[in-house]
Amino acid sequence: TAPFALIAGPCQMESLEHSRMLCARIAEATAPLGIPFVFKASYDKANRSSLDSQRGLGIDKGLEILAAIRDEFGCPVLTDVHDTAQVARAAEVVDILQIPAFLCRQTDLLLAAGETGRVINIKKGQFLAPWDMANVAAKVASTGNESVLLCERGASFGYNMLVSDFRALPIMAETGYPVIYDATHSVQLPGGMGATSGGQRQYVPALASAALAVGAAGIFMETHEDPDNAPSDGPNMVPVDALADVLGTLRAFDRIRKGG
Amino acid sequence: TAPFALIAGPCQMESLEHSRMLCARIAEATAPLGIPFVFKASYDKANRSSLDSQRGLGIDKGLEILAAIRDEFGCPVLTDVHDTAQVARAAEVVDILQIPAFLCRQTDLLLAAGETGRVINIKKGQFLAPWDMANVAAKVASTGNESVLLCERGASFGYNMLVSDFRALPIMAETGYPVIYDATHSVQLPGGMGATSGGQRQYVPALASAALAVGAAGIFMETHEDPDNAPSDGPNMVPVDALADVLGTLRAFDRIRKGG
Amino acid sequence: TAPFALIAGPCQMESLEHSRMLCARIAEATAPLGIPFVFKASYDKANRSSLDSQRGLGIDKGLEILAAIRDEFGCPVLTDVHDTAQVARAAEVVDILQIPAFLCRQTDLLLAAGETGRVINIKKGQFLAPWDMANVAAKVASTGNESVLLCERGASFGYNMLVSDFRALPIMAETGYPVIYDATHSVQLPGGMGATSGGQRQYVPALASAALAVGAAGIFMETHEDPDNAPSDGPNMVPVDALADVLGTLRAFDRIRKGG
Amino acid sequence: TAPFALIAGPCQMESLEHSRMLCARIAEATAPLGIPFVFKASYDKANRSSLDSQRGLGIDKGLEILAAIRDEFGCPVLTDVHDTAQVARAAEVVDILQIPAFLCRQTDLLLAAGETGRVINIKKGQFLAPWDMANVAAKVASTGNESVLLCERGASFGYNMLVSDFRALPIMAETGYPVIYDATHSVQLPGGMGATSGGQRQYVPALASAALAVGAAGIFMETHEDPDNAPSDGPNMVPVDALADVLGTLRAFDRIRKGG
Repeated sequence: TAPFALIAGPCQMESLEHSRMLCARIAEATAPLGIPFVFKASYDKANRSSLDSQRGLGIDKGLEILAAIRDEFGCPVLTDVHDTAQVARAAEVVDILQIPAFLCRQTDLLLAAGETGRVINIKKGQFLAPWDMANVAAKVASTGNESVLLCERGASFGYNMLVSDFRALPIMAETGYPVIYDATHSVQLPGGMGATSGGQRQYVPALASAALAVGAAGIFMETHEDPDNAPSDGPNMVPVDALADVLGTLRAFDRIRKGG
Repeated sequence: TAPFALIAGPCQMESLEHSRMLCARIAEATAPLGIPFVFKASYDKANRSSLDSQRGLGIDKGLEILAAIRDEFGCPVLTDVHDTAQVARAAEVVDILQIPAFLCRQTDLLLAAGETGRVINIKKGQFLAPWDMANVAAKVASTGNESVLLCERGASFGYNMLVSDFRALPIMAETGYPVIYDATHSVQLPGGMGATSGGQRQYVPALASAALAVGAAGIFMETHEDPDNAPSDGPNMVPVDALADVLGTLRAFDRIRKGG
Repeated sequence: TAPFALIAGPCQMESLEHSRMLCARIAEATAPLGIPFVFKASYDKANRSSLDSQRGLGIDKGLEILAAIRDEFGCPVLTDVHDTAQVARAAEVVDILQIPAFLCRQTDLLLAAGETGRVINIKKGQFLAPWDMANVAAKVASTGNESVLLCERGASFGYNMLVSDFRALPIMAETGYPVIYDATHSVQLPGGMGATSGGQRQYVPALASAALAVGAAGIFMETHEDPDNAPSDGPNMVPVDALADVLGTLRAFDRIRKGG
Repeated sequence: TAPFALIAGPCQMESLEHSRMLCARIAEATAPLGIPFVFKASYDKANRSSLDSQRGLGIDKGLEILAAIRDEFGCPVLTDVHDTAQVARAAEVVDILQIPAFLCRQTDLLLAAGETGRVINIKKGQFLAPWDMANVAAKVASTGNESVLLCERGASFGYNMLVSDFRALPIMAETGYPVIYDATHSVQLPGGMGATSGGQRQYVPALASAALAVGAAGIFMETHEDPDNAPSDGPNMVPVDALADVLGTLRAFDRIRKGG
């Protein structure tokens, strides 16, 4: 049976060299398992907890790097867009445009993304029920673009904490669109460290396993060679050294789920 | 003692005539109580649950109407902005720019708003803790603009429901910025009617009273002459006929809180 | 108009002398305002976070003290019961039997309490919706005892935190039974200090004010002469020195709510 | 590797014949997979939503049936206790005493249960964080009885809904005690049908799979030959006809988790 898809990369792009190194490591980890992967990186962290946190390389440099990665590795690439003005430009380079969770109800952004004809990965807002995503996807589909992915990344659970409701995956799958589980942001502790968000990296493999056990079509997982010193989301990223092992386990659960 | 401020108006602008009629009714209801008011209306509902819901009059017509209201009634006016591209234009007309709750972490929007020098009313995201708003306000303040209002409008509580945590008001007040309670959107049932959001109008007066009892500096309350037929947020708006009575009660609680 | 009722006392009974002292202070604080009060104290803390916390004086000594207080001060007294075996004995002494929140779904305890004919104050479980309390009250009412009070004390909101949903008060009032707001336990941070529960005493007056603004029939508020050294619930109790001031404010809000 | 343990049976005991039939079916479904099972049944549903719901056969008849099942099938049996007065009697018959979730903080019940020396299965309260269970288990352990199981059965998530936080399993496992996942009550919709609780049977297999993927030592799963007509918890029980299939899948996930 065909393995699940992986969306992986650093949270924030650091440089071409850094992206190449990580992409090579991801390719190495996925190849023996036959897991198709999408390289993911953000050129702009537009909604950091605090103004003092780094924003990123910017759209020009960012898209240049993503284009180079795509050429060199032949893998699809994904980035997130925060403004209708950026959508068309990003769509010239990337295969998948991602709508951030906070922005998943912004009609203009969804329509602009849909109109590019690219695959659109929509993160479910922390404030939405899984059944609310059918209306969100319909905004994209109204443009004639049915290439939609729906992505669970945790629901608000009191203050400064998210919970992953694994019923959300089969519920969103009823739309007919593939459902991705974002194992990185689901273990975020938003605002949990004062001016930055904390995280619980130790639960990423277990929760990603659970997601495949309930039928996720893909896993989103950020990775870094040195998470503790990454410019963003360090507390929840998987060290790239551990990636092959984690993926091996995930593939085994995925195979069981698919009946073989 | 000085009364609390009221931010009131329809959810969605319908026409100049309709806005004038409502503004006159709000002026009538507030005048005997000495309650200062800001006229609020949206020219674009950019994040409706479903694509089939009405979006609004658009920025050109919308700002023209707000300017006319401001001229005729001499009251400050407020509108919400969803895109950095709209901020400067809206700021030419309105006294208060409002940042929607879903967008309260979008750094560029906060900075663009701050740079206009207008008063910025920031709705607290349904996914944020009250103490997280200090970092949000700091983004605006970094532009040198300290005219910030922080607005509670409910926190995510399970699916399709919000809860008003009244501890949030004193907690946000510790920033030194005035705290507004949005009594309309706090009783929203997001996505609760399938393709639209439901609401619980019956609790608006009680919760607004509670907000003043815990020390709110202002109340945000949408109103309409016929809420059941309003194009947006009908289930949670106060009928304009009931406004004078509701405000009389609120002012009484406000006076007690202020020690006389 | 008749003032709201106050249920007040220490969390945990310490001695006859201590109960007499506190009851005298409560009587002093309520008398000038005409606020009727019920003296509340627990003889057994049956569900402490940790085994190492103090349990209390036990039922024999506890009921003896409550009887003495009742005789000396002429006020009604309340205690909580945790076991059907204790109900009849406690009912010989107290005017109001209280069902703890964790136990509010235990049918036998509710029936045994109802059958005593005493007033039954049922705390709403942290895990229940306000509309679920109608079925809970019906269990007591099935015994022919309609002397029921329903008491809001916070709903679970993520881990180690409660939130007071003030819609719960009017919702529970639809049953026709008086609704009490427990301003002490609503600001508990359950398990929030590891082996004990934390609390947020600073929000008690504000939240009690909010409760009266939305129409509470009574306020439950634990008090102590030295909360920081109380054997239980210290972090959320009001110092008895502050009681008169707090009650003065509460009565003012109560009067407004009652239209005069 | 040794398979996970199964705790299974009807929610509510109906008769000896009915228990025998179900136990035989459970034995049939588990034997080929080598899954050890415990027969579970309740003789008294002490905390039904409404008084009109059936309570059960009572302790005398209930223990008699459990003893007969134990003799005939040679499997361990489990029942839940609600009152310290019942503990010693139930312990004469059953191998595992279960503490209901609502009662998991009742110190006397925990101590009485611990003192019997039986295995104690403690359901985590819907109002507790997973790390709070260490203090709960310590109450049992204080009696010298270290045969403790900790059981996740969902956490309160807004009103009338639970969510399974799968981080809770590894967190509770840090105590050193085996962790059970109750796949039946975790999909309960408490009070969700007015006078009874609703449920979401369709998610039981997926969530049980997820639980084994994150490392559960055992699965608790109620079953019935005709769930829609069962006297209690019908909406969340697995039809006994489907049991063998469900267990086959669960064992496959369990084997992967255990590295082979």
